[in-house]
Amino acid sequence: MNIVDLNCDMGESFGSYKIGRDEEILKYVTSANIACGFHAGDPSTMRRTVNMAIENNVGIGAHPGLQDLVGFGRRAMDISSEEAYDLVLYQIGALQGFVKAEGGSLQHVKPHGALFNMAAKQKELADAIAKAVKDIDPELVLFGLANSELVKAGKEAGLRTASEVFSDRTYQKDGSLTSRRESNALITDHVQAVSQVIRMIKEQKVITLQDVDIDIEAQTICIHGDGENAVDFASYITRALNDADIQLDKIGNFLTR
Amino acid sequence: MNIVDLNCDMGESFGSYKIGRDEEILKYVTSANIACGFHAGDPSTMRRTVNMAIENNVGIGAHPGLQDLVGFGRRAMDISSEEAYDLVLYQIGALQGFVKAEGGSLQHVKPHGALFNMAAKQKELADAIAKAVKDIDPELVLFGLANSELVKAGKEAGLRTASEVFSDRTYQKDGSLTSRRESNALITDHVQAVSQVIRMIKEQKVITLQDVDIDIEAQTICIHGDGENAVDFASYITRALNDADIQLDKIGNFLTR
Amino acid sequence: MNIVDLNCDMGESFGSYKIGRDEEILKYVTSANIACGFHAGDPSTMRRTVNMAIENNVGIGAHPGLQDLVGFGRRAMDISSEEAYDLVLYQIGALQGFVKAEGGSLQHVKPHGALFNMAAKQKELADAIAKAVKDIDPELVLFGLANSELVKAGKEAGLRTASEVFSDRTYQKDGSLTSRRESNALITDHVQAVSQVIRMIKEQKVITLQDVDIDIEAQTICIHGDGENAVDFASYITRALNDADIQLDKIGNFLTR
Amino acid sequence: MNIVDLNCDMGESFGSYKIGRDEEILKYVTSANIACGFHAGDPSTMRRTVNMAIENNVGIGAHPGLQDLVGFGRRAMDISSEEAYDLVLYQIGALQGFVKAEGGSLQHVKPHGALFNMAAKQKELADAIAKAVKDIDPELVLFGLANSELVKAGKEAGLRTASEVFSDRTYQKDGSLTSRRESNALITDHVQAVSQVIRMIKEQKVITLQDVDIDIEAQTICIHGDGENAVDFASYITRALNDADIQLDKIGNFLTR
Repeated sequence: MNIVDLNCDMGESFGSYKIGRDEEILKYVTSANIACGFHAGDPSTMRRTVNMAIENNVGIGAHPGLQDLVGFGRRAMDISSEEAYDLVLYQIGALQGFVKAEGGSLQHVKPHGALFNMAAKQKELADAIAKAVKDIDPELVLFGLANSELVKAGKEAGLRTASEVFSDRTYQKDGSLTSRRESNALITDHVQAVSQVIRMIKEQKVITLQDVDIDIEAQTICIHGDGENAVDFASYITRALNDADIQLDKIGNFLTR
Repeated sequence: MNIVDLNCDMGESFGSYKIGRDEEILKYVTSANIACGFHAGDPSTMRRTVNMAIENNVGIGAHPGLQDLVGFGRRAMDISSEEAYDLVLYQIGALQGFVKAEGGSLQHVKPHGALFNMAAKQKELADAIAKAVKDIDPELVLFGLANSELVKAGKEAGLRTASEVFSDRTYQKDGSLTSRRESNALITDHVQAVSQVIRMIKEQKVITLQDVDIDIEAQTICIHGDGENAVDFASYITRALNDADIQLDKIGNFLTR
Repeated sequence: MNIVDLNCDMGESFGSYKIGRDEEILKYVTSANIACGFHAGDPSTMRRTVNMAIENNVGIGAHPGLQDLVGFGRRAMDISSEEAYDLVLYQIGALQGFVKAEGGSLQHVKPHGALFNMAAKQKELADAIAKAVKDIDPELVLFGLANSELVKAGKEAGLRTASEVFSDRTYQKDGSLTSRRESNALITDHVQAVSQVIRMIKEQKVITLQDVDIDIEAQTICIHGDGENAVDFASYITRALNDADIQLDKIGNFLTR
Repeated sequence: MNIVDLNCDMGESFGSYKIGRDEEILKYVTSANIACGFHAGDPSTMRRTVNMAIENNVGIGAHPGLQDLVGFGRRAMDISSEEAYDLVLYQIGALQGFVKAEGGSLQHVKPHGALFNMAAKQKELADAIAKAVKDIDPELVLFGLANSELVKAGKEAGLRTASEVFSDRTYQKDGSLTSRRESNALITDHVQAVSQVIRMIKEQKVITLQDVDIDIEAQTICIHGDGENAVDFASYITRALNDADIQLDKIGNFLTR
């Protein structure tokens, strides 16, 4: 039987500003990537989100991002590997404080936005992030785009890694996601989105926009927590995966070394 | 024989901005209060400062402050107790990440500036801070102004506490420090400063500006790391304490429950 | 015939974070207080909001706040008068840049949140804010709570001032607003809210929670732009004022020296 | 007779953090580029620096940077042209507020650090910056690297532009500065630095590291205000230029359309 993790970004509210329907989405996902105050999130939001994740028995992950609140961490920045190491370590530590205080345990780390994308391609940056994760806790699982430098860096560092796939994005034959600037980057049809995911899980294949199949490992699926249809889609995909005999569980429960 | 801890604020540089002569001061003090990125400090500065403290075998403390970089955390803010809990927890966690990664251990927590002063007088705020410290690690030592609400809150929470005295500040008969707005708030004469400290350690007394002695406990002495004479004074006070048969050691080494 | 200005806080979104239904509210109000990037707002939001205000022929105001994004500028801070002067001047200047670029003109300044409340009571702070407004442009109208130190400071500085009243807040017999911590601080009934406003405009009186009438000047009415009923209330109050033969116009059009 | 402007970055202190010896450097330069709070500077520093510039009769410029205080605006960020327009406009406006309040007038705009470098090469970004400058005040002078896209964009927008040269940097045959990552990027010898500048002014030529002369226009020379030798060099270069019969004056005084 197949098994997969379902993750979602969470805790992205900031002060009086609210983003995401965390409370509802938490009922469907198995892992939560919690913003750590640099691109989104603030200490109070972090505590509340950690608390909700524990109550829902969802795997807790740190979701460190670039220090760019106004850009939501989505704008690439020319940071050094050392700076990447430091800001990832800082943010993991900060979240870990809340996890400890709330009596939970940290499961994984997933870089956010531009940092995630940069670490998919830049080996040195990926190595720095993997090292930060390992230095703070070698038992943490490192999430990265399937086939990315970040997953490779995690494996080389001796970390457990989770290859992540996207249900609602199209792929290029080099394994990268189609840029959001392209008109066909997004899969908006729920049925199509889920059938792509199911094939990735069962056959380890995905059809690219170049009409060529590529190999892909799908250990965790990313869904989105904002947008009008977020909760509907979360509900839909969990039922569909269940119907396809794919078990949902948090990554820490089934990932071995 | 008497024993005391000597602490200093550290890691207050930020990006290209440099404050403090940490490298030199670390040779004299026994405990370092390291800024955590809210009122001062940044991830890279934190890592380097933690590393230097370990190399100098100095006790490492988190020095959380209000989120007010331009005001250096010195301007009182009307935050709720819950906000205080959250921002202290966040900052301790962040520093703890670096301490772990560098292979050290966190010894204490000392709130910074306005947060320190507010916690000296406001019981609810002091309780929230003590709870944050306890929730993240009940073995941490909580630093507070001698006779303050913060020390009381720490004791009530079951934490080990360190009563802090200032070598270069005058005292009021209610045990508070003379406000810096008063002309006679500071003791600039080294000899006078050190003899005040020695009396606090040996006799548990300090003479106030009202010419009345009050009881005071001196478990840790705060010195300052910036200013022209910081290193000279650090050197002077350590020799003077030594000459007075007062041993210097980091607080974690001699404080019992 | 009576005339009054109707103002609302605007441009409080920040990056990906959205607050307020500015586009809809702008159809009802006569003046907009636009956040300037310290407690809310960012450069792009400011430009768009200024542009919308011009298109709706609404009076444009700078809405400077404390530098506390996570607290939305609602937490009192112990800033010096000089700091208040500087941060108000900075924010007015920044907004004025957009107003110029979009071909409009700046009408007024209204401090936000904690700064507004502090300036209502602290004469020195109020004087500093009034001076900042005057120094950048003596033709600007300064908004302040009716009967506050800020209105007095504006008058003394030779500025035109607008005494502001709240439709949805109860009053104390000293002229202050009932603290939001009190259960009866808010008037949630639309009819009651509007009849309080109409009496303030026509009779220059308001009944206080102590059942005593006090004198009050109502040159501009503050309504809120967030919350579920914001647009409904905006629509309701404009119709009700119209029915009561009270004309709505932007303050710059009818305020004389 | 030749004439040139001598500019220096200023007002880069932030809160308790001090960078630069502005007071001393202001005696030598003819134009000051004042940080506007995004990469450096804060409202109080801006006011004081504007005031000092006026007292020294130095041309005042806005020095807008990326919103990256910890990176001092030196790390390239993938911002959109619209974002560049907005953040430049915001910062110019903010500085202009202080200039007005202090009774001075704004002379020029020079983007800082990574924004300056990005605008030297990216036409769209350069156009956006030029448009921001023009929209706020078409009389402002736009500073850009000699031969850069920014200078071109300024000219096309109808602005007066100032081609800037560096005394202490080596040049490539494509007209760009040698990257600071190269060992021979800097000219540390004062005599060599100044003779390069004098030749750029008198012959409009500079020898490149490829041993080829290129054409270069030198309307303003950038010197640095931090570093141990900053004041010495400022003194040295002004004397040397004087001895070479090159007059120093602020750019606004001699630049025609």
